[in-house]
Amino acid sequence: MNIDLIKEKVEPHLTIERYEHTLRVAETAIQLAIRFDASKEKAQLAGILHDYAKYRSKEELASWIETSDLPNTLLDFHHELWHGPVGALMVERDFGVEDLEIRNAIHYHTTGRAKMSKLEMIIFLADYIEPGRKFPGVDEVRKTSKQDLEHACLMASQNTIRYLMSKQATIYPDTFHTYNDLTRRVYGG
Amino acid sequence: MNIDLIKEKVEPHLTIERYEHTLRVAETAIQLAIRFDASKEKAQLAGILHDYAKYRSKEELASWIETSDLPNTLLDFHHELWHGPVGALMVERDFGVEDLEIRNAIHYHTTGRAKMSKLEMIIFLADYIEPGRKFPGVDEVRKTSKQDLEHACLMASQNTIRYLMSKQATIYPDTFHTYNDLTRRVYGG
Repeated sequence: MNIDLIKEKVEPHLTIERYEHTLRVAETAIQLAIRFDASKEKAQLAGILHDYAKYRSKEELASWIETSDLPNTLLDFHHELWHGPVGALMVERDFGVEDLEIRNAIHYHTTGRAKMSKLEMIIFLADYIEPGRKFPGVDEVRKTSKQDLEHACLMASQNTIRYLMSKQATIYPDTFHTYNDLTRRVYGG
Repeated sequence: MNIDLIKEKVEPHLTIERYEHTLRVAETAIQLAIRFDASKEKAQLAGILHDYAKYRSKEELASWIETSDLPNTLLDFHHELWHGPVGALMVERDFGVEDLEIRNAIHYHTTGRAKMSKLEMIIFLADYIEPGRKFPGVDEVRKTSKQDLEHACLMASQNTIRYLMSKQATIYPDTFHTYNDLTRRVYGG
């Protein structure tokens, strides 16, 4: 399936705004792939597909989690966290994506995880810094993303933890693992 | 062993400053126990003993971790986190403290954990708010500690996470579990 056909099949599952975000994530991911020497094709495809499951109903997402190998603990956390892991399964069914690197980049794009691959970091970061994003601190992350992929991802994960704490929200363990792992990778110790 | 004899046996293992901190933690813990209807005697004893292992060498602490049932993952984190878990073992050997409530309060006083008991929260909080502490935000935690033990512990854990992130330090998983668990207990969801 070529990329234009995939875009055509993704678009009806998203709002207009979310589809435009998706295109910007894919474009940002391509730039990061060029900058940090990863596959542009994989970055683009993972970018286009990363939010594929975003607007499925809570019931549909929960059903995927319950009937797959995904950890049931996901259900104890906000449903905003479900579309990545479920999306990684849906893209195999609907688009035949079997590449585990791409599917892991989709799976972990919201939380990250310990020991992220380069492609995982690219999608995690592209989702955070694409030009439509206006988070507090995002410009500093964009600046760091010009030089250092791991450090930029670390900054994004710190901002996310601070944001969630300010909202009195629980924080999914993979978000912390991302922070700890990247802190070790960037600062050692 | 009465409490004065225990103090006498603890004092030589600490610096003067740390021993004074210990006495203030015990005093603060007694006040919290009265306020929140817990055992004053257990609160005092756990307060006196909470830092008992604080000034043992890294080698001695690591050896306790390696040769006990404590999780070896502790060794991957800052050695500042080792004295609580090891202290909980040492007080059994040196003072015959078998009360698991007291030993858990000592074990988890630095990080907290999910599902802390009332006594665990009292020692965790007393260590954070005793009158000698000058952390940013500590006065707000002291104020909340007049009314709500769980909420005050949650604020302390948030401040700790923010502080560690500002220092580019890794964060022990139990610290996150404390935050998530208390967020659920205080705010629901």
